[in-house]
Amino acid sequence: MKILVLNPNTSEDMTELVMRVLAPLTPAGVTLKPATGRFGARYISSRSAGAIAGHAALDAYAEHGMDCDAVYLACFGDPGLFALKELAGIPVLGMAEAACRRAAALAGRFSIVTGGERWGPILTEFVASLGLADSLASIVTVAPTGGDIAADPEGSIALLAAACRRAVEQDGAGAVILGGAGLAGLAARVEPLVGAPVLCSAATGFAAVLEALGKPYDKPERGDLALPAPVPGIGLSPSLAKLISG
Amino acid sequence: MKILVLNPNTSEDMTELVMRVLAPLTPAGVTLKPATGRFGARYISSRSAGAIAGHAALDAYAEHGMDCDAVYLACFGDPGLFALKELAGIPVLGMAEAACRRAAALAGRFSIVTGGERWGPILTEFVASLGLADSLASIVTVAPTGGDIAADPEGSIALLAAACRRAVEQDGAGAVILGGAGLAGLAARVEPLVGAPVLCSAATGFAAVLEALGKPYDKPERGDLALPAPVPGIGLSPSLAKLISG
Amino acid sequence: MKILVLNPNTSEDMTELVMRVLAPLTPAGVTLKPATGRFGARYISSRSAGAIAGHAALDAYAEHGMDCDAVYLACFGDPGLFALKELAGIPVLGMAEAACRRAAALAGRFSIVTGGERWGPILTEFVASLGLADSLASIVTVAPTGGDIAADPEGSIALLAAACRRAVEQDGAGAVILGGAGLAGLAARVEPLVGAPVLCSAATGFAAVLEALGKPYDKPERGDLALPAPVPGIGLSPSLAKLISG
Amino acid sequence: MKILVLNPNTSEDMTELVMRVLAPLTPAGVTLKPATGRFGARYISSRSAGAIAGHAALDAYAEHGMDCDAVYLACFGDPGLFALKELAGIPVLGMAEAACRRAAALAGRFSIVTGGERWGPILTEFVASLGLADSLASIVTVAPTGGDIAADPEGSIALLAAACRRAVEQDGAGAVILGGAGLAGLAARVEPLVGAPVLCSAATGFAAVLEALGKPYDKPERGDLALPAPVPGIGLSPSLAKLISG
Amino acid sequence: MKILVLNPNTSEDMTELVMRVLAPLTPAGVTLKPATGRFGARYISSRSAGAIAGHAALDAYAEHGMDCDAVYLACFGDPGLFALKELAGIPVLGMAEAACRRAAALAGRFSIVTGGERWGPILTEFVASLGLADSLASIVTVAPTGGDIAADPEGSIALLAAACRRAVEQDGAGAVILGGAGLAGLAARVEPLVGAPVLCSAATGFAAVLEALGKPYDKPERGDLALPAPVPGIGLSPSLAKLISG
Amino acid sequence: MKILVLNPNTSEDMTELVMRVLAPLTPAGVTLKPATGRFGARYISSRSAGAIAGHAALDAYAEHGMDCDAVYLACFGDPGLFALKELAGIPVLGMAEAACRRAAALAGRFSIVTGGERWGPILTEFVASLGLADSLASIVTVAPTGGDIAADPEGSIALLAAACRRAVEQDGAGAVILGGAGLAGLAARVEPLVGAPVLCSAATGFAAVLEALGKPYDKPERGDLALPAPVPGIGLSPSLAKLISG
Repeated sequence: MKILVLNPNTSEDMTELVMRVLAPLTPAGVTLKPATGRFGARYISSRSAGAIAGHAALDAYAEHGMDCDAVYLACFGDPGLFALKELAGIPVLGMAEAACRRAAALAGRFSIVTGGERWGPILTEFVASLGLADSLASIVTVAPTGGDIAADPEGSIALLAAACRRAVEQDGAGAVILGGAGLAGLAARVEPLVGAPVLCSAATGFAAVLEALGKPYDKPERGDLALPAPVPGIGLSPSLAKLISG
Repeated sequence: MKILVLNPNTSEDMTELVMRVLAPLTPAGVTLKPATGRFGARYISSRSAGAIAGHAALDAYAEHGMDCDAVYLACFGDPGLFALKELAGIPVLGMAEAACRRAAALAGRFSIVTGGERWGPILTEFVASLGLADSLASIVTVAPTGGDIAADPEGSIALLAAACRRAVEQDGAGAVILGGAGLAGLAARVEPLVGAPVLCSAATGFAAVLEALGKPYDKPERGDLALPAPVPGIGLSPSLAKLISG
Repeated sequence: MKILVLNPNTSEDMTELVMRVLAPLTPAGVTLKPATGRFGARYISSRSAGAIAGHAALDAYAEHGMDCDAVYLACFGDPGLFALKELAGIPVLGMAEAACRRAAALAGRFSIVTGGERWGPILTEFVASLGLADSLASIVTVAPTGGDIAADPEGSIALLAAACRRAVEQDGAGAVILGGAGLAGLAARVEPLVGAPVLCSAATGFAAVLEALGKPYDKPERGDLALPAPVPGIGLSPSLAKLISG
Repeated sequence: MKILVLNPNTSEDMTELVMRVLAPLTPAGVTLKPATGRFGARYISSRSAGAIAGHAALDAYAEHGMDCDAVYLACFGDPGLFALKELAGIPVLGMAEAACRRAAALAGRFSIVTGGERWGPILTEFVASLGLADSLASIVTVAPTGGDIAADPEGSIALLAAACRRAVEQDGAGAVILGGAGLAGLAARVEPLVGAPVLCSAATGFAAVLEALGKPYDKPERGDLALPAPVPGIGLSPSLAKLISG
Repeated sequence: MKILVLNPNTSEDMTELVMRVLAPLTPAGVTLKPATGRFGARYISSRSAGAIAGHAALDAYAEHGMDCDAVYLACFGDPGLFALKELAGIPVLGMAEAACRRAAALAGRFSIVTGGERWGPILTEFVASLGLADSLASIVTVAPTGGDIAADPEGSIALLAAACRRAVEQDGAGAVILGGAGLAGLAARVEPLVGAPVLCSAATGFAAVLEALGKPYDKPERGDLALPAPVPGIGLSPSLAKLISG
Repeated sequence: MKILVLNPNTSEDMTELVMRVLAPLTPAGVTLKPATGRFGARYISSRSAGAIAGHAALDAYAEHGMDCDAVYLACFGDPGLFALKELAGIPVLGMAEAACRRAAALAGRFSIVTGGERWGPILTEFVASLGLADSLASIVTVAPTGGDIAADPEGSIALLAAACRRAVEQDGAGAVILGGAGLAGLAARVEPLVGAPVLCSAATGFAAVLEALGKPYDKPERGDLALPAPVPGIGLSPSLAKLISG
């Protein structure tokens, strides 16, 4: 079985970081195929970069996903998530999507802690689009970005733990997601300082993909996630053109 | 690894039906341990029977669950679900809980089709308690009860399919849950008549338990799902008394 | 006219405390019949104790309620409330239910102040199940439990008043409920320190029962609160078995 | 004890109809003092007529309410309700307010059946302003107005019963309010045709006023329902001027 | 084209203040016709004063609005807004209504800063009645009333800026409305201290009226904002009687 | 003043159709500059085509918008709307955004009628992202797509009018939007058959752009719609790269 690990950022470094996190979690018999966005921002930290990345995710899936059994959209915020679900005939799971659903199942109400202040309203909308608005205790952003945190993980533990504690103690979260590939691997360090489950979004999302791998996939045949009718198009990569235009 | 298959109804027949459904889905290395409610209604179809079953579920867990690795609360409507999650140190998943979370993840908005008219408002409240009210398209009840349907599955296919189609076409559901052990095994027969994913609650819930089995369990240490402080009690079975009173 | 004062805790002391509070509020011609839970925790302070108490409430009603004209479920949090409403042919009012409806009617938005931190999420769910989520300003829990407060009422006044003021000044409550039998009688002491109505849950709930006593009772004939069809059962007290199984 | 029965319509006929309905429900020792709006529409059936009636209700209270112990705002839709609650130092209950709170307490989810199509959105807003939006199953309007129905009650029974059945069977109401003084007295006739509690708004509201009469009144001392600071005014009746301007 | 500038307060001073604010914003070819409430409180700062002002607004419109092309209900809180919209055959825009819609369009989530503590719950209800509850970040009231601020604008800048910053930084507002005629003209002074758009309610509302002026007006022909059927009435000014009773 | 009329579909025909609709509505002194998507689907009728169009909209803005004073995102469903608002320093208004805000302001609750069944859930999410979920009465899709309707407008009138009537009569809409450029110009034909305002999305959106043109633009300086910090990128058109990367 093969999983497309799709990083719609255009940073190979970030793809490699994600692959390093996932490698030890990958069971025998499962192969990971990395793919990086072909165009767009190095790091997604705005609505416009995210909009471009939605296209880049489709483009990368069309180019690299045809021989895969599932897609892991490995970028917290999940640009292009529902478009990919629509276009792909295989399971597509997003890092934020899977982490949020897992946290809600674990603890009822959850919070997200992530780097970069702009993410607050964007992630609030995202959680609502999952139908989980009632389960969201809060989103707590810290000033350093995911990239900053990845560059100094040791120095970020205390800051992240304080944000998680605020989520638990003031906002009533029963579990906290550390959101973003840049924060991968820190949950185990932060959790003992918090007193509530702290989830690594990268690992949690990957676990959901592995679960989906083992099950027959029930692609919707109607509704807004069914495969759309082919429509002519221009200016797309040959692979994506083929998917869109049939 | 051992799973407690907990049927809080007091009907051994229903427990056996559930076990027959789960047996072929059980991977090597996993053992199922059935447990039936020691007191209460044969079949739960009211709020009062459900309230008694909440106690019966705790009682059965205390008696039979100590050597298990996970609990499958195998009764759609999940009596005692959050109390069990609180009291147990191992993962507890309910049939309705897991099916609803899976359906929401699969299709955004979902419906539940089940037997017995009283279930409408009770299940609406249950879905809201999961934080999934925004994801619920509708609950469609048919007149025959789960027991009636289990007794005449063949004759129920058309009725269930019509209810599912109404959910999809009128209520906007992207997936439909056939809710209840009595309807186990019918989803594969109904789905081709519907044109949208139709989930078997019994099988879907079981899959979620299997997924939980393979993962370290992150028991909340604080909040309303943490283990409560011991408190004196009376009139309980020795096993449950030990759990409650320490 | 006779009111069943049903304490689903198993503490006779708590039943006696409630009776002492209600006695001076009882009009001539009305008799109070106390009943204490036959099994379960001494004091309910967790979801699991509450689940057992839901059964104990039905059990006590079946044993003691047949010659009564109304039931006062005299335990804040109202374990088994909707199950009792379903099973009984006489009015059933819960202490928290009645206090919340009264506070909403009095002031639009209300808060609950009570003892014991675990109650926050449990009561939030309870208020939502009443359809009153929009009217809830906040739930403010203080560290001492209801039992602690009952043991030292004098020493608790300042703490409770501070919690009430926070509810009014920060959370926008127009009225505050002091929730729980352990806090009975303190509202009159706390109110002058708050500057907004402070309701005693025990007295407010009792007033609602008295109001119901004087009116013909309109037992629903259909829907989820109508009397359920009889269903065979096992392991129940003879009285409850008779109610459940007909 | 004296109750001001305040009809903010300017129709004496309607006031007399209400008085005839309430007279047999009035206990010994309670006096009813009728008051009719001094200005405005004969019958309120629009937002503009309702806005004028809000002022008329305050005007009538100022003129007639000073020697009363409670106010019954006896016009379904309750024009001026919260303004009256603010201005009066005695309990004020509205016909729709009290009926909605009673129906929600009785059955969880309720519907309103009333005459006149314009009432749908106006009453939806009103129920939301009570904080009861979650408890409203539906508002079903029938074409004849309350006045039409009062003129031909016999001929309206079947129509009203059909509307109530729709509310129960399609919209999931557990109880239905027949809204408006014009429909007073018909609930007992309609209920047997419905199979769920049908409440007379006039009688239900009056019962709530009687209940309030017997209790000490806890006028809010702060917040939006406390007595406002005096403010100069012009063009008001001497009585109202005195209340507003001190 | 002529705009009725309708101040339903009875203070000519306030009307003149509003006119001074609007004069420089008025394009050539547009005339402003001021109208002040004929009865009611000098300044509206309570629910009861607002209820009277709803009638006064209709009265003033009937007297002065017949030769106008649009109505600007120039009092933040918009007493009588929907009643005026119903009764008038020309566009009616309220100061708070237009400012809230503009702020939501500009920034998604907005806050209101205004003078006088009682306004919190009243404005919360008002925003909900516009269907904009989801877009409201917060309402922040400061102790001085609008009149106090108008009397000492210079001394109020710092206080208002602090309130706006709290709305932006703590409550997540993307834009803030300075609500009320008394605060007119201060937005430009406050905005540089806030770092987010700060809207003058008086100017923003007026801009919306000017926009409406240039467009054909699509008066609803059915529903709750259509012209109501004439109904007899008493005690109204001749102009208003004519509008209500035809 | 110059308006960029941005059609993120890749169909020049559709751009020309929009331009023909807008030309007669364009005041003197205003120039329209059309721009068509450089890549993507001819017609957007799926989530994946919409995701690509979000990028195409940014790309077209970067190429053609630098000398413009406002952007009209002239494609109902508004792909890339919030990303464009973030990236542009001039006002950006979407066809669906502006039509929904206008309909909500006009009538409180509104419906959308459009062609193509897939649009239901996509537009429901879109309206929620505007904060207008409470104002949406319904979305009624008809089977022919916008393109089909544009090809046979005459033959579509009856179908559209029936859909609008359903929205008004069954769903409680006070106004209905005919959504999509393909339906441009039909509102005036459909409205007389409906009895409630019917809005042309193309014209309504354009009116909003014209209104914005005349006002100083208050670009947010912080929050999720402020200009993002430059970030390196690859594979973008030179114009878009310059905007993204600075």
